[in-house]
Amino acid sequence: MSENTHSLDVVILSKEHAAYKAALEKYEQPAFNIIQATDDPSAIDQKQVRVMLADPGLAADIVNDCDRLQWIQSGWAGNTPLLEQQKRNYVLTGVKDVFGRQMREYVFAYLLYFSRNIHAFYEAQKNDGYNKWNKPDYQYLAGKTLGICGAGSIATSLLPVANIFGMRVIGLSRSGAPKSGYDDMYAPSQKIAFARNSDFIINLLPDTPDTHNFFDASLFSAMGKNSVLINAGRGSAIDEQALTEALNHEHLRAAVLDVFRQEPLPDHHPFWHHEKIIVTQHTAAESDPEDIAALFHDNAQRFLNGETLKYVFNFEKGY
Amino acid sequence: MSENTHSLDVVILSKEHAAYKAALEKYEQPAFNIIQATDDPSAIDQKQVRVMLADPGLAADIVNDCDRLQWIQSGWAGNTPLLEQQKRNYVLTGVKDVFGRQMREYVFAYLLYFSRNIHAFYEAQKNDGYNKWNKPDYQYLAGKTLGICGAGSIATSLLPVANIFGMRVIGLSRSGAPKSGYDDMYAPSQKIAFARNSDFIINLLPDTPDTHNFFDASLFSAMGKNSVLINAGRGSAIDEQALTEALNHEHLRAAVLDVFRQEPLPDHHPFWHHEKIIVTQHTAAESDPEDIAALFHDNAQRFLNGETLKYVFNFEKGY
Repeated sequence: MSENTHSLDVVILSKEHAAYKAALEKYEQPAFNIIQATDDPSAIDQKQVRVMLADPGLAADIVNDCDRLQWIQSGWAGNTPLLEQQKRNYVLTGVKDVFGRQMREYVFAYLLYFSRNIHAFYEAQKNDGYNKWNKPDYQYLAGKTLGICGAGSIATSLLPVANIFGMRVIGLSRSGAPKSGYDDMYAPSQKIAFARNSDFIINLLPDTPDTHNFFDASLFSAMGKNSVLINAGRGSAIDEQALTEALNHEHLRAAVLDVFRQEPLPDHHPFWHHEKIIVTQHTAAESDPEDIAALFHDNAQRFLNGETLKYVFNFEKGY
Repeated sequence: MSENTHSLDVVILSKEHAAYKAALEKYEQPAFNIIQATDDPSAIDQKQVRVMLADPGLAADIVNDCDRLQWIQSGWAGNTPLLEQQKRNYVLTGVKDVFGRQMREYVFAYLLYFSRNIHAFYEAQKNDGYNKWNKPDYQYLAGKTLGICGAGSIATSLLPVANIFGMRVIGLSRSGAPKSGYDDMYAPSQKIAFARNSDFIINLLPDTPDTHNFFDASLFSAMGKNSVLINAGRGSAIDEQALTEALNHEHLRAAVLDVFRQEPLPDHHPFWHHEKIIVTQHTAAESDPEDIAALFHDNAQRFLNGETLKYVFNFEKGY
């Protein structure tokens, strides 16, 4: 085969452009011919863009003017900024299966943090006016129910750990159809029963119009007093006012929030100061440039061979 | 068979005597005939004691005077107080396989707490003089090495979780012989190499003369700056002075201590106030009276049938 078949012209538009560039340069067969690598959309020569590895938020600034665009490989799970653009006559591919490992550690770190009551042990140790050996209460994950909203590929990574810890796992999906690895599945219309039966709820729902304010006052009221919500899906899924009120009225024990309607979460936002809210700065599952590069390389091979790419985004369905 | 064959006279001497009594009363075939249930050794009619379910510390007060004693089932893993008594002409059985589930949650709660740097996120959120969205550093368990001292039955419960999280596991045992589930095994004489190769060290060594001050200055010096020690074995395994100095000199990042030479750990003990030490009040793996009762019932059946009991303590070896 000729050399040309085995290299692909690529524009990188990402905050991580340097890391992506370094990771892509290691590949051969096909190799990447990197035309530009920048985090500045205005620096891009739009006529040159046929294939782009990009952060969706940055690509959205220029995508409508990229007339020769064939394919964008997104480095993130959240493609909403591109979904909001008019241009749709190109292939947009997303990222899957590279967040599971990270999400697993994030979710179980906080599940165990709360069930083991680590903060109460910390406070007890610091508190001098106390018989220090009196142990705080704590519980076990064993026997508890983990409720996962958005029972997709990232959620799958949680199942084996939940299983070893002896947890029951229930899921909520569009169809509510039975799913391997889940003790029970619920449809969105059954969210109250889902919340009532969960000791911990993890939100991994994608950002679609259907999921806006999915976590509302009705759902919070159904949660148990000792239950904890972890939002590692999208900020738009949560009715912020309703969450604050539910926490104030002890409808649930705490919320761990990784994603927000506005990011960065403004310094003056009340979530920062709520004693039952933990903010984790969108770190639950940060993509590793090496992992993204490997996926991009796999897709580049398919692209050059005229095959279907992996994780193609459906503009109609919005995911 | 006659009714007598299927009931066993039992004395309960434990802080948990009420819970044990309730749990034992549920059993038939054999049933337990509970003669006394108390937490006061001086209340025991020593002549009556043939079979006892007991906390080792309480039983040690009277064991030498129980002339008709045949068998003590201990409710704890730590039998040292009974080992220190002269009387050895009876069967002492311990507890195994009932702490694994609890220990698993305890250990991974703190491994994830440190690798996810949960406390730094907590502090960042509270700190007002800060660009709050700047995320603290954190790491993943994946790729890290878990070093387990005392690669016995409790340790086995940690292996599947470590495996799912993508950790390497090394062990230290008396023989240092290869062991299934461990990437590498070390003998006590190789403890420096063991410490050097571990990112987290969990001590589960039993309390034997060999293990006193096993964790000494030489071992601490070999640990990595970011490594964490969890002691859920015995307090005597740690040279307290050496640990404090090692923490002060940043030879390791932190120590999570569940067990101590003196328990309760006195309120004035410096461990309570050391910012790199977490004290967890001997809660890592508290035995569940139901689990102990089930084991005791199994052993009672064997006892009445004249068979070998499970988990017989070897007075010569000290474990």
